[in-house]
Amino acid sequence: MAEPIVFYFEFASPYGYFASRQIDELAESFDRTVQWRPVMLGAMMKQTGARPLFDLPLKADYARQDIPRFARFLGVPLAMPSVLPMNSLASSRAYYWLLDNMPEQAHRVAQAFFHAHWGEGRDLSPPEIVADVAAEAGVDRETLLAGIGSPEIKARLRGETERAMERGVFGSPFFLVDGQPFWGADRIPQIRSWLERGGW
Amino acid sequence: MAEPIVFYFEFASPYGYFASRQIDELAESFDRTVQWRPVMLGAMMKQTGARPLFDLPLKADYARQDIPRFARFLGVPLAMPSVLPMNSLASSRAYYWLLDNMPEQAHRVAQAFFHAHWGEGRDLSPPEIVADVAAEAGVDRETLLAGIGSPEIKARLRGETERAMERGVFGSPFFLVDGQPFWGADRIPQIRSWLERGGW
Repeated sequence: MAEPIVFYFEFASPYGYFASRQIDELAESFDRTVQWRPVMLGAMMKQTGARPLFDLPLKADYARQDIPRFARFLGVPLAMPSVLPMNSLASSRAYYWLLDNMPEQAHRVAQAFFHAHWGEGRDLSPPEIVADVAAEAGVDRETLLAGIGSPEIKARLRGETERAMERGVFGSPFFLVDGQPFWGADRIPQIRSWLERGGW
Repeated sequence: MAEPIVFYFEFASPYGYFASRQIDELAESFDRTVQWRPVMLGAMMKQTGARPLFDLPLKADYARQDIPRFARFLGVPLAMPSVLPMNSLASSRAYYWLLDNMPEQAHRVAQAFFHAHWGEGRDLSPPEIVADVAAEAGVDRETLLAGIGSPEIKARLRGETERAMERGVFGSPFFLVDGQPFWGADRIPQIRSWLERGGW
């Protein structure tokens, strides 16, 4: 089997959500696996000097129009969260804790986080809500809460974010396909073409 | 015939170039016309707080990889210009002067500007080079140079940029389709779907 596709994202990113609804099926149709890797977009933006989408004049207005339209284009559920952007530390740490301790659950719970935030509009900033959503997906609430509060898991998320930046990642979603960087949910058609043609 | 598509762009924008190679044919297949409208992206960026792509850490490296790959994806010629970003005042003013005075030439000359800059890597910052490229496309050099130096045409470009910002435009390329804003060359597939389905 060829190299896995690495899918970097931020749970607070709507375009990360849109990518999350497409990348697994796309990869599978080319016999590829996908490594999901949440990162701290805020830390990346400090380095690039970018500011949160919803703080930017003109761009914020555009985003509020583009996001629901993009969801309808893909046919995926959307409920605009009241808190934009939410703090995704707890959800991202929960993902890595699951990946290290209950790897068979991690991917499904990440999908549940995306759905709870962007499909249902829930604010996953509080660790308790993250634990609620994980519990709905079958993970023990208290075990997960203890895990995501540990210094190791905090360091793990920081380390993943730093390694991603070293590889050139600065946005969400961001894909590495055969070493090629692709930024944005709207690059999915190019990724499809890349996999079909084996590069170009 | 339905409402024209408005295509806002900056000649110095590589993604504006990529869009320019696709939008006319797309529109024509849905019996639509396209209004080409160059704008001053620098003025827009002042308002949004954005900075030139090639000045940004990480993003600039990505762009240098993405731009040639995007050109190969589309199958369009590309020669990275040595000056990035070029000053596009002269080329944008030339477009509006032609639109007002020799309208049947304006669109073809705009395509020639894009090709000279992004297909051949020529720097169109000097008005003399802009006039050379327009002359190759059959426009009298001295008449055009006189035209683009006039206060009226300078005010025209400023006015077009201001009106675009009033309509929510902040990037290149940027499309208005049936009043809907679409930002980015990678939104062309969504525009196609919008035209096919009459919205969604």
